[in-house]
Amino acid sequence: MTDTPSKSRTGLPVVGMIGGGQLARMTHQAAIALGQSLHVLSAEPDDSAALAVADLRLGSHLDLNALREFAKGCDVVTFDHEHVPGDHIRALAAEGVKIFPSADALIHAQDKAVMRQRLEELGAPIPRWRRLESNVDVAAFGLPAIVKTARGGYDGRGVFVVADAAEELPDVALIIEEKVELRRELAVQVARSPFGQVAVYPVVETVQRNGICVEVLAPAPRLAAEKAVRAQELAIHLATELDVVGLLAVELFDTPQGLLVNELAMRPHNSGHWTIEGARTSQFEQHLRAVLDYPLGDTRITAPAVAMANVLGGPDGGMGIDERVHHMMAAEPGVKVHLYGKQVRPGRKIGHVTALGEDMDDCRARAVRAAHWLQFGESL
Amino acid sequence: MTDTPSKSRTGLPVVGMIGGGQLARMTHQAAIALGQSLHVLSAEPDDSAALAVADLRLGSHLDLNALREFAKGCDVVTFDHEHVPGDHIRALAAEGVKIFPSADALIHAQDKAVMRQRLEELGAPIPRWRRLESNVDVAAFGLPAIVKTARGGYDGRGVFVVADAAEELPDVALIIEEKVELRRELAVQVARSPFGQVAVYPVVETVQRNGICVEVLAPAPRLAAEKAVRAQELAIHLATELDVVGLLAVELFDTPQGLLVNELAMRPHNSGHWTIEGARTSQFEQHLRAVLDYPLGDTRITAPAVAMANVLGGPDGGMGIDERVHHMMAAEPGVKVHLYGKQVRPGRKIGHVTALGEDMDDCRARAVRAAHWLQFGESL
Repeated sequence: MTDTPSKSRTGLPVVGMIGGGQLARMTHQAAIALGQSLHVLSAEPDDSAALAVADLRLGSHLDLNALREFAKGCDVVTFDHEHVPGDHIRALAAEGVKIFPSADALIHAQDKAVMRQRLEELGAPIPRWRRLESNVDVAAFGLPAIVKTARGGYDGRGVFVVADAAEELPDVALIIEEKVELRRELAVQVARSPFGQVAVYPVVETVQRNGICVEVLAPAPRLAAEKAVRAQELAIHLATELDVVGLLAVELFDTPQGLLVNELAMRPHNSGHWTIEGARTSQFEQHLRAVLDYPLGDTRITAPAVAMANVLGGPDGGMGIDERVHHMMAAEPGVKVHLYGKQVRPGRKIGHVTALGEDMDDCRARAVRAAHWLQFGESL
Repeated sequence: MTDTPSKSRTGLPVVGMIGGGQLARMTHQAAIALGQSLHVLSAEPDDSAALAVADLRLGSHLDLNALREFAKGCDVVTFDHEHVPGDHIRALAAEGVKIFPSADALIHAQDKAVMRQRLEELGAPIPRWRRLESNVDVAAFGLPAIVKTARGGYDGRGVFVVADAAEELPDVALIIEEKVELRRELAVQVARSPFGQVAVYPVVETVQRNGICVEVLAPAPRLAAEKAVRAQELAIHLATELDVVGLLAVELFDTPQGLLVNELAMRPHNSGHWTIEGARTSQFEQHLRAVLDYPLGDTRITAPAVAMANVLGGPDGGMGIDERVHHMMAAEPGVKVHLYGKQVRPGRKIGHVTALGEDMDDCRARAVRAAHWLQFGESL
């Protein structure tokens, strides 16, 4: 970022993030350390990041003029989510806005059909799949299978197991995939800068419940070193081929046929929250470094075992969250808590906790216990 | 904090900090993780913390009405510096504001004469000293000696070596102290909650140049375990006896007669910046926990050696700081940088860097090299 003068008075660059969720909130923490202050375009004034940043602009990520105005105050613009239309990103880039990842890269995190097709072309290992046009295709593909909406799904939404070829399908673009024999899910994150530098994190295991990531174990327990390296090489290959700038998270199925790519995300990701304390450079700092074309940071893990557990909203809508934090801290003085300032709704991700130590089983038990307490106010 | 409803809509408490310096800036980072957003009362809109917080109020820490208005939006109020007049703190407390540390505690960080006298009463080891009324006292005390202004000194200001009893003295309250035979300086931080819980950090070595702390080594190298424990016990004893709530930093002289207390600070402190990455709970999170009467966090060190070096403003007034950050990151991908968003003036503290590892000499060299590069844009 040394080619143009910075838009801040401190001489350090201004990064703008579109979207005011917890990813922007935690990116702001990282930006503060780098002498910056994240600019955020948020839909609502009480969004997670909106509550914490000094430089907030309210507006919709679907409104090109709002995006344009927001970009004026920034040296680089990036994303808290993948819902900004590609045409808007292209329009901004054409007007000279540095915006990463590009629309051509981001499409692979926005559209599963485009992603599957491109991965196939790149020879990346993926489940057997096809675009789904009608119920005729379902029968031809074979059952049981997984049907996914090409766009808009997250946290398990937009994913259906189909057992009957006559089942009614939603009227949107769909893909159908084989139901793989899943041993577990893994994920690997890699950062890439415009210069082309890449830095890859250790492979982690992600544990899902009801389609939502609830735990992340770093490094993935009992993963053969060779397989871990293969996963890291795959992530680097994809980041480079797709011309990603910023972070790429590659979600993987661990199956008897080997690793298969499930999904891609091009931003900080739930599977990387453990890096705040668990890696020398957090995913949030790394994303900033990458989009700024700064040299990337050391991705080394800081403890033999790191376990992250998401904190979900409890059935009581967050009554007494302060008291729960109090009790949790008394029980687990070493567990790190991250709360997102979000209104509590049952099952909504409202925070996460991280436990670090020598032994994964112990770390995992501590993290899960702490998260359970924060959700329910009772012991596991 | 479970006795009254929180002033935030998230159910989590609102902490207000008086003063908008880098300590408030870094406390905001910690507050974000706890689901909060630090409220800051800052003198200027471009103060370090003012640039990074969502909830900013501009006003003077000397203006009781400004303090009162600020406190209305907070569940607890604390300090970024020790310059708020005791009478103002007492007035707020009398009006029901939870404000920590109390005026009666804070006076020991505001007035060196009061501090020395109280420490003497408590039997804490201190240099030989007395209040200084006139040049007659200087001769009687013996020379060479150190003269300090009782109030207002920091970073070496307000401290003079006196070699001649006839030397002109400033017309303010002064103390005179023996010039101790200094092997090195140490510091130890302890947090204390209103409940009375204490948590002490490892003893560190602080390296000063021109009266300014330039490096901190954690843990203090080659410090006998027994001596370290004595220093920690002393810090706990002082925090308890002085009824400190929040963080207490005890600055120590390591001398042939043993450890002597130099100064006290009751807030996050430069000697504790290493804890952001180097301890399981950072001093900033710990200060928040303490003033909120939350259970305190694990103070364990996260690596065998942690070295912090302050980044001072360079002679060129910060030209090209972004490029320097770029080069520094390329040379030292594992060094953690913290820049405070301050206008660069030669010699002003504008940030710090932290290196963690197995070997202190290596960590120290990396941190010093990185800080030197950021200041001067050239190799050591």
